[in-house]
Amino acid sequence: MDLWYSEYQTERLRLGFKIRETLHRSRTPYQDLLIVDTYEYGRMMLLDGMVMLTDYDEFAYHEMIVHVPMCLHPNPKKILVVGGGDGGSVREILRHPSVEKIVLCEIDEEVINASRKFFPRISCALDNSKVEILVRDAIEYVKNPGEIFDVAIIDSTDPIGPSLGLFTPAFYQNLQDCLTSNGIVVAQSESFYLRPNHVRGMYLKYKQLFPHVAIYCSNIPTYPTGHWTFTLGSMTQDPLKDWSKQRAKRLESELRYYNAEIHQSAFALPTQFREWLNG
Amino acid sequence: MDLWYSEYQTERLRLGFKIRETLHRSRTPYQDLLIVDTYEYGRMMLLDGMVMLTDYDEFAYHEMIVHVPMCLHPNPKKILVVGGGDGGSVREILRHPSVEKIVLCEIDEEVINASRKFFPRISCALDNSKVEILVRDAIEYVKNPGEIFDVAIIDSTDPIGPSLGLFTPAFYQNLQDCLTSNGIVVAQSESFYLRPNHVRGMYLKYKQLFPHVAIYCSNIPTYPTGHWTFTLGSMTQDPLKDWSKQRAKRLESELRYYNAEIHQSAFALPTQFREWLNG
Repeated sequence: MDLWYSEYQTERLRLGFKIRETLHRSRTPYQDLLIVDTYEYGRMMLLDGMVMLTDYDEFAYHEMIVHVPMCLHPNPKKILVVGGGDGGSVREILRHPSVEKIVLCEIDEEVINASRKFFPRISCALDNSKVEILVRDAIEYVKNPGEIFDVAIIDSTDPIGPSLGLFTPAFYQNLQDCLTSNGIVVAQSESFYLRPNHVRGMYLKYKQLFPHVAIYCSNIPTYPTGHWTFTLGSMTQDPLKDWSKQRAKRLESELRYYNAEIHQSAFALPTQFREWLNG
Repeated sequence: MDLWYSEYQTERLRLGFKIRETLHRSRTPYQDLLIVDTYEYGRMMLLDGMVMLTDYDEFAYHEMIVHVPMCLHPNPKKILVVGGGDGGSVREILRHPSVEKIVLCEIDEEVINASRKFFPRISCALDNSKVEILVRDAIEYVKNPGEIFDVAIIDSTDPIGPSLGLFTPAFYQNLQDCLTSNGIVVAQSESFYLRPNHVRGMYLKYKQLFPHVAIYCSNIPTYPTGHWTFTLGSMTQDPLKDWSKQRAKRLESELRYYNAEIHQSAFALPTQFREWLNG
């Protein structure tokens, strides 16, 4: 049997995976949810036809979206995760002993359920007593959350479909009101190579809201171009100077991607991208 | 018209490009040579079905294979390029004013001719008076080159077909005899994610020959996983300490990828890869 799934990364570019079988397919209230078992990268979750994660390389995404802001904040206790229903970000956040509470605000309960069923190594921490799961639209939640957070992680899908509102100035203004005075926000912000204007737009939007803004990168083979950006905004901490190398080093033995050298180097941008941001 | 070209990156993974047209197809004495015009990445050269370069992202490869060793060597005058018939490495080497002579040893003349015809921005420096082009098998050439080099750049195809001999200990022993006492060698060495054993094998082979060995990385969207490694061996210069930040900075305004921060950060490896190398 020669069965393939192709992700159309753009209309003119597609990445094809030979698959063993389709494990799950449903139309949730918000999106198409597909789980396939690929030969190259193991199990893979797709939403609206786009690769969200695979068992093989999810560490390169989750470790980088979480440990960079967590090691930057001086004492992160309360964490908000927007999206991230698969549980990968929650798993990584809980490695930090300072954490007292995580609110996971995921709009689509079926993503959570599918991850529990098909991705046990990713969803393993969702039942931790520090985790509160809210099946809600984060756009509404941040208007009146009833608590404030040290770090917010926007672990969303790309800015189409249900996530579109997570990329608006209105969302970020409300989000900022949910943060402590030294709060930090990070969001996945796509590929420089394929969507430079999107990355630049995120950067400029953050510049209007945060005294410190930086883009950093991770190498994620199953995301378009393999080179992914995260946009980080910080109220007081300078991303390049104020992070805890000591905490980064303490985590290293548990992790597969993030380490102290990677933290520092992830902020180095190829010249062309640096110019796109500032040009 | 909906015409696509798919590269089988492995038997289980393929990257598909929508193409405008096929510009050239031939069977050279050594390999299949194909040039297509893609919508996403512009013109693309493929050898034996594998993407060698595109107009869109070749800078991420050529700048990184060249400027890292060139800024590490204290005074690079004579440079050997093995493979690299497209001319991209030669173009980058010539940005260093210390260079007096480049020997380009490319086995397949049709690659040179095709690059001259279809990739003028990449082949533009091949006629420079400092460049000597030898259409020869580098495996034979390094046995008795008649001169010695400061830097050797192994800009070859992957270790299948005509390039296989460029990955053997015998080739490297001969190559080492062609180097000055503070010589430096760098080779493209594939993707950690897809071929960890190959990267590790290169690293261990270099360890037997050079006092200083390091792996560094670049992000190249059209290469498998988008995350590519280079293996560097050096007789006297420490890759992490002895490079010229001043020369790196002087080049920045001409370049699109390489800069001083990128030089430093390219050697930071994700923890899993670091462990694969040393485990």
